[in-house]
Amino acid sequence: GLSMEKLGGLKLISEEIKDILKIEVSVLMGANLAPEVANDNFCEATIGCKRKAQDGALLKKLFHTENFRINVVEDAHTVELCGALKNVVACAAGFTDGLGYGDNTKAAVIRLGLMEMRKFVDVYYSGSNLQTFFESCGIADLITTCYGGRNRKVCEAFVKSGKTLEEVEKELLNGQSAQGPPTAKEVYLMNKKSGKDDQFPVFTAVHLICAGEMKPAQLVDCLRNHPEHL
Amino acid sequence: GLSMEKLGGLKLISEEIKDILKIEVSVLMGANLAPEVANDNFCEATIGCKRKAQDGALLKKLFHTENFRINVVEDAHTVELCGALKNVVACAAGFTDGLGYGDNTKAAVIRLGLMEMRKFVDVYYSGSNLQTFFESCGIADLITTCYGGRNRKVCEAFVKSGKTLEEVEKELLNGQSAQGPPTAKEVYLMNKKSGKDDQFPVFTAVHLICAGEMKPAQLVDCLRNHPEHL
Repeated sequence: GLSMEKLGGLKLISEEIKDILKIEVSVLMGANLAPEVANDNFCEATIGCKRKAQDGALLKKLFHTENFRINVVEDAHTVELCGALKNVVACAAGFTDGLGYGDNTKAAVIRLGLMEMRKFVDVYYSGSNLQTFFESCGIADLITTCYGGRNRKVCEAFVKSGKTLEEVEKELLNGQSAQGPPTAKEVYLMNKKSGKDDQFPVFTAVHLICAGEMKPAQLVDCLRNHPEHL
Repeated sequence: GLSMEKLGGLKLISEEIKDILKIEVSVLMGANLAPEVANDNFCEATIGCKRKAQDGALLKKLFHTENFRINVVEDAHTVELCGALKNVVACAAGFTDGLGYGDNTKAAVIRLGLMEMRKFVDVYYSGSNLQTFFESCGIADLITTCYGGRNRKVCEAFVKSGKTLEEVEKELLNGQSAQGPPTAKEVYLMNKKSGKDDQFPVFTAVHLICAGEMKPAQLVDCLRNHPEHL
């Protein structure tokens, strides 16, 4: 995931752990809604391991079971960033649900969100591998989160109820919090600082809507001239 | 889409039209469930146009509106194949719904299905562009079809009711038919002929389940040693 640095900018949680503990850190991400994993339903996950040649086989052996299928990739930054950024896209998907749009609009928002995830990785953490987005940590986790995750749920309720995000979280999440809104804020500040917020209309709209600076109904207006359509 | 050739093998519908009418044919595909398009909900679509340099701008102008956003790509074969193959994956997604699996399993099936779509294009229509799978015709249409489409719906009901596919289609589709099962059969015969059916466990399972040669509950068993996990 992502953490906010004191002087602005973002830091990968894996890097933070590495700096504190002075150990190599790998990440595990995937389409893994916890209740279903606990129920031993079949699913996949991705391990991002920078030292794949040395550690990949061992990590796979540790986690790979009949119903929890592991792929190990070297592109650990992208794996971790997918896990953080998908929550922002899921907020946008939740807004479309709350606004009463159907599957076409939701799919467009998810796709444009995925394109922004790719661009974000490209701009700030270059050297990513396009294939990583086809792993479980990429499109699969994104789909799961945008249909079944808690960010989607909270953002749908936020639009429908007119309550604040905090109120909706309290009512729906039983003490947990949604990671999408704070991540959207961090991402927005980072893009704003580098003058690139216009290139990320989904990410930007999610932050502005969560912050009360834009009405949810304006989400789709922001997408009409998405850089992907030029 | 795909049509079956008399001597076995598949032919793209666009090629068939081209051969009959002796004109250049482009294809339009995307996350476009018809009722929602009719309702003027925001969505995207992809036009596959081999002569993009000459015809792309005109085609975009013809279809691009405020709520129907067009991207034109040159990789027309892939665009068309995505439109046909997604229906096979949607059948698999419908089976997981019918079997009572959650979002994790469904996302795994969708992802593995997408990997098979890529491989199918690669094996039989080489020269595709990976980016095309990120267009609306690719992942977005796949998501929409696997959540809201009629192939998914019919296949879910097939598992739950224990009726034949024909019966379920008659009850649910109001005269329309599901394209997934016949496409799965064509794809299966093609893969069988070239000895590659093992490389496409999702496609193969969909055909065998639709044909009554495999029980729906065996779907997940077929995925445990998917080539993508090796």
